[in-house]
Amino acid sequence: MNNMVLPKPLRGIIPPMITPLLDRDNLDIPGLERLVEHILAGGVHGLFVLGTTGEAPSLSYKLRYDLIERVSKQIAGRVPILVGITDTSHIESVRIAEFSQKQGVSAVVLAPPYYFPAGQPELFEYLENLVPMLPLPLFLYNMPSCTKMIFEPQTVMKASQLPGVVGLKDSSGSMVYFNTLLSLLEDRKDFSLLVGPEELLAETLLMGGYGGICGGANIFPRLYVDLYDAAVAGDLARTRDLHKKVMWISTTIYSTGRYNSSFLKGVKSALNLMGICSDFIESPFHCFREQEKRKIRTYLQQFSY
Amino acid sequence: MNNMVLPKPLRGIIPPMITPLLDRDNLDIPGLERLVEHILAGGVHGLFVLGTTGEAPSLSYKLRYDLIERVSKQIAGRVPILVGITDTSHIESVRIAEFSQKQGVSAVVLAPPYYFPAGQPELFEYLENLVPMLPLPLFLYNMPSCTKMIFEPQTVMKASQLPGVVGLKDSSGSMVYFNTLLSLLEDRKDFSLLVGPEELLAETLLMGGYGGICGGANIFPRLYVDLYDAAVAGDLARTRDLHKKVMWISTTIYSTGRYNSSFLKGVKSALNLMGICSDFIESPFHCFREQEKRKIRTYLQQFSY
Amino acid sequence: MNNMVLPKPLRGIIPPMITPLLDRDNLDIPGLERLVEHILAGGVHGLFVLGTTGEAPSLSYKLRYDLIERVSKQIAGRVPILVGITDTSHIESVRIAEFSQKQGVSAVVLAPPYYFPAGQPELFEYLENLVPMLPLPLFLYNMPSCTKMIFEPQTVMKASQLPGVVGLKDSSGSMVYFNTLLSLLEDRKDFSLLVGPEELLAETLLMGGYGGICGGANIFPRLYVDLYDAAVAGDLARTRDLHKKVMWISTTIYSTGRYNSSFLKGVKSALNLMGICSDFIESPFHCFREQEKRKIRTYLQQFSY
Amino acid sequence: MNNMVLPKPLRGIIPPMITPLLDRDNLDIPGLERLVEHILAGGVHGLFVLGTTGEAPSLSYKLRYDLIERVSKQIAGRVPILVGITDTSHIESVRIAEFSQKQGVSAVVLAPPYYFPAGQPELFEYLENLVPMLPLPLFLYNMPSCTKMIFEPQTVMKASQLPGVVGLKDSSGSMVYFNTLLSLLEDRKDFSLLVGPEELLAETLLMGGYGGICGGANIFPRLYVDLYDAAVAGDLARTRDLHKKVMWISTTIYSTGRYNSSFLKGVKSALNLMGICSDFIESPFHCFREQEKRKIRTYLQQFSY
Repeated sequence: MNNMVLPKPLRGIIPPMITPLLDRDNLDIPGLERLVEHILAGGVHGLFVLGTTGEAPSLSYKLRYDLIERVSKQIAGRVPILVGITDTSHIESVRIAEFSQKQGVSAVVLAPPYYFPAGQPELFEYLENLVPMLPLPLFLYNMPSCTKMIFEPQTVMKASQLPGVVGLKDSSGSMVYFNTLLSLLEDRKDFSLLVGPEELLAETLLMGGYGGICGGANIFPRLYVDLYDAAVAGDLARTRDLHKKVMWISTTIYSTGRYNSSFLKGVKSALNLMGICSDFIESPFHCFREQEKRKIRTYLQQFSY
Repeated sequence: MNNMVLPKPLRGIIPPMITPLLDRDNLDIPGLERLVEHILAGGVHGLFVLGTTGEAPSLSYKLRYDLIERVSKQIAGRVPILVGITDTSHIESVRIAEFSQKQGVSAVVLAPPYYFPAGQPELFEYLENLVPMLPLPLFLYNMPSCTKMIFEPQTVMKASQLPGVVGLKDSSGSMVYFNTLLSLLEDRKDFSLLVGPEELLAETLLMGGYGGICGGANIFPRLYVDLYDAAVAGDLARTRDLHKKVMWISTTIYSTGRYNSSFLKGVKSALNLMGICSDFIESPFHCFREQEKRKIRTYLQQFSY
Repeated sequence: MNNMVLPKPLRGIIPPMITPLLDRDNLDIPGLERLVEHILAGGVHGLFVLGTTGEAPSLSYKLRYDLIERVSKQIAGRVPILVGITDTSHIESVRIAEFSQKQGVSAVVLAPPYYFPAGQPELFEYLENLVPMLPLPLFLYNMPSCTKMIFEPQTVMKASQLPGVVGLKDSSGSMVYFNTLLSLLEDRKDFSLLVGPEELLAETLLMGGYGGICGGANIFPRLYVDLYDAAVAGDLARTRDLHKKVMWISTTIYSTGRYNSSFLKGVKSALNLMGICSDFIESPFHCFREQEKRKIRTYLQQFSY
Repeated sequence: MNNMVLPKPLRGIIPPMITPLLDRDNLDIPGLERLVEHILAGGVHGLFVLGTTGEAPSLSYKLRYDLIERVSKQIAGRVPILVGITDTSHIESVRIAEFSQKQGVSAVVLAPPYYFPAGQPELFEYLENLVPMLPLPLFLYNMPSCTKMIFEPQTVMKASQLPGVVGLKDSSGSMVYFNTLLSLLEDRKDFSLLVGPEELLAETLLMGGYGGICGGANIFPRLYVDLYDAAVAGDLARTRDLHKKVMWISTTIYSTGRYNSSFLKGVKSALNLMGICSDFIESPFHCFREQEKRKIRTYLQQFSY
């Protein structure tokens, strides 16, 4: 299979796709197919599967491999596909990267191994060992609320010299960190710095960031693409206006439950109510109960894009 | 004394002044006088004394009162003065607020009491009790790296209804938090949302924030004022250009030491090398040793504004 | 006044006295007098005022000085008095230590300055500067839930060489830390290692610790003294039996509220219901409401000692 | 295969076996065989494989299954075997539990799923769903430095009612937590409360705990078994004496490196120097370099048991 070549640097909106599930350890296959088309119809610049929003760590390995195969076939080179290979076992990370390469995936994404706390020199040595074994370009990924650790700026600087490391997705929520990287990597125009939390997308783009991995783009892909276009065009008024819509979604649909899981539950619930796919979530979570679903329904009646 | 009336909302650059110290428990009085004029010459929109950058918690009470009196006299209504009254004892907070009011100060600034961890309802009850005793308008202040707690969005929403609460300074470093407040308080155009970390100033202003409490404005006040003006005018190119200078300062002068105290040591060291005031720091810190001072000198030779 | 000489090492039960308050910034003087006698009647080996349980950081300075004077006069050499001098300003720490010395206090107790996060070398330099200015023997004090930092083992080892540093109270809750210090300081039989959380008192004593600063000894001083005697005598069965009573108190009286403040509120409420003193608490906390008080009353009907 | 029946409650020393590795993704099979016999010769009461000390999350699944099979065959019912099934995917947890059951394993051990932070009600619902699918008795496992979450006391209380949940291993390091559970579960004499950090073994046993999962028992199994026997017999002097040896190991062999990984590196290095097995460690860690190995060699010359 001919893998779509990754633009260098990768720019734009690359939604972290949720994984549609019928029930325990079963994909919602028609839902998955509808979801992929729904997202692509929004004009996105890539698709990221098996990330945090994709519940990758909660899925069985069998299902993860199945998902990669199905999505690759369906997309068939229309946009670059990125696959999350974060794992506590570097052996499993390599295995899934090799499989991804064979399916036509364009790049892989890796957060720090998330069981053992490691020092930064240990983390860099981990990358030094792992990167040469990967058959695809690599994005580093910070997600400290789940992994406890980030790749600190000096580690990113060193890692950016390793062949194959092409960018970083930052979900730390710290724009001081992000701006520091933008500043330190100013001469590396081929190194893509992407932001996670969509509440930070507008300012990331205005300050020179390359794009966003926006969970909300599962629901309203066009909104995030339009915001990207406005910001890149330097249209400050429109950027702010679209940013307000993003904030509205954040303070309603993502804020309905009590725990960190509210974001994921909100997105899956909205997609279900829109008739796109099932809202089943793998353990340790579960989908919203009726009361929360009613709230999401009301929000969706108030907003569309 | 006639207190300068605070603009509602307060907008602009309000530097958190360092406290020039000759040695243990002694102000560097000529240094203080030079510093105040240096900062005001930059066109700033206010001055914040006895904040974190001012080492307020490390100073004796006697010196804190003395400082308020001297600064108030020197400024004499040229710009509004804000005074930090954060204390673990609410009684001492009220006392210093009352003194400030008599000296012509325009507003006070309060972070959560920073010894006992408190729940948000406890924190709101604390504000409910305290605010009516304060004779000046109040800015809330998030500084979780020092106080362990922040005023969470729902607590800010409730507190913004208390008479006299006129704004918030956020040094949490979280733009998700800041954007959430901007969104929730969109209808309160009189409530001033100011940002702490200067690395976030440009984007804060571009996204609709009201200004910044920038430590670097002790050294280069005009830089931050120019950035403010550019951002408010919607001049994206110039805003980015000035932001890059701010980031350069952040990754050089503030990053010379090993600990959190690097920022403070860097600012005091730079001011000392510029001939403005002493670089003495109260315990638990100390000023930079010769090796670090040499680095700061080199940076200052590479950059001025 | 002749200060009672401190035993070296200090051993036994040294209750951290709560501060009886009538209302905002006013001591409950008769309550204070009853409380001191109540505690001393339990056979304790010392009294610690102005600690965390004493709400020291929440009190005005005037009230802190007044309290030292009153307690010193009342105790009049019957047991050694320890005074907390923890402060973000080392100047205020020295001042209160000097006053304490004049009132006949035997030793002072110091946690890290609790606003600025400091590195361990900074913390040791802080001690190196401060200790020579103190006119009384010093106990170090770990209370990381309030101060964010502890004195790490290597810092304690170095500090234990400074003249005047005679022991450490550990409220970190980590017996790995405590056992490490017991092990590293095995040859320093004059250095007193005391434990904070009373849930750890029994095992601390069985493993060779010197005593405890037990908040529950405000209510039932004899219980903790008896536990101390049993453990020191190697009476394992009686130690366990008394430990169970301590755990019962912990899982009832201290666990009635929702926040960290439950312990303090529970102790003050119990003392109030026993007719000893007022249960007023300084901001940021408040005493229990009627519902919680009813629970405490029930617990006190089920248990006495 | 006939699974050895688990004593209820399980008592004693159950070492968390390190996993001897020849190189990347390859077991050191002769080393594994020697290690198992070395540990069993110490008189231990069970063996725990694929725990944190066993690097379970860093191993490929193939290797994990292979290890269970080999160890089960070799032990052949001489002591109960416990297998770690902690996983971010509950499907993989069930799969490895089913395999373990077929190999003759006696029980499984489960920490919270360690990627997504979950609320306690979510965590209990996770257990409620998972436990009925497990074919073996279950020990809960707290390891917050790796998993970010613990099973809080009220969650343990509810989980202890689920059929098949027979105990808990606590590596939180908090004896306040452990004593709280001992107190709350006093009437459940069949529920085994085991401690992780060996620095806490002596006091755990003296206070009524059931035993320990001691990493050092890979090296000196007899030491921990003797400490267990002494403490159970109420021999306080001998317990303290053996505890001092445990603390010596902790402050030497486990404290040689700079990071959290020092413990694992120290244990594997010691076993290698004793001629038992390879010291290879899977990524993200690596074995000690020559300099640290020399220190470990010196320690082993100073101590044996």
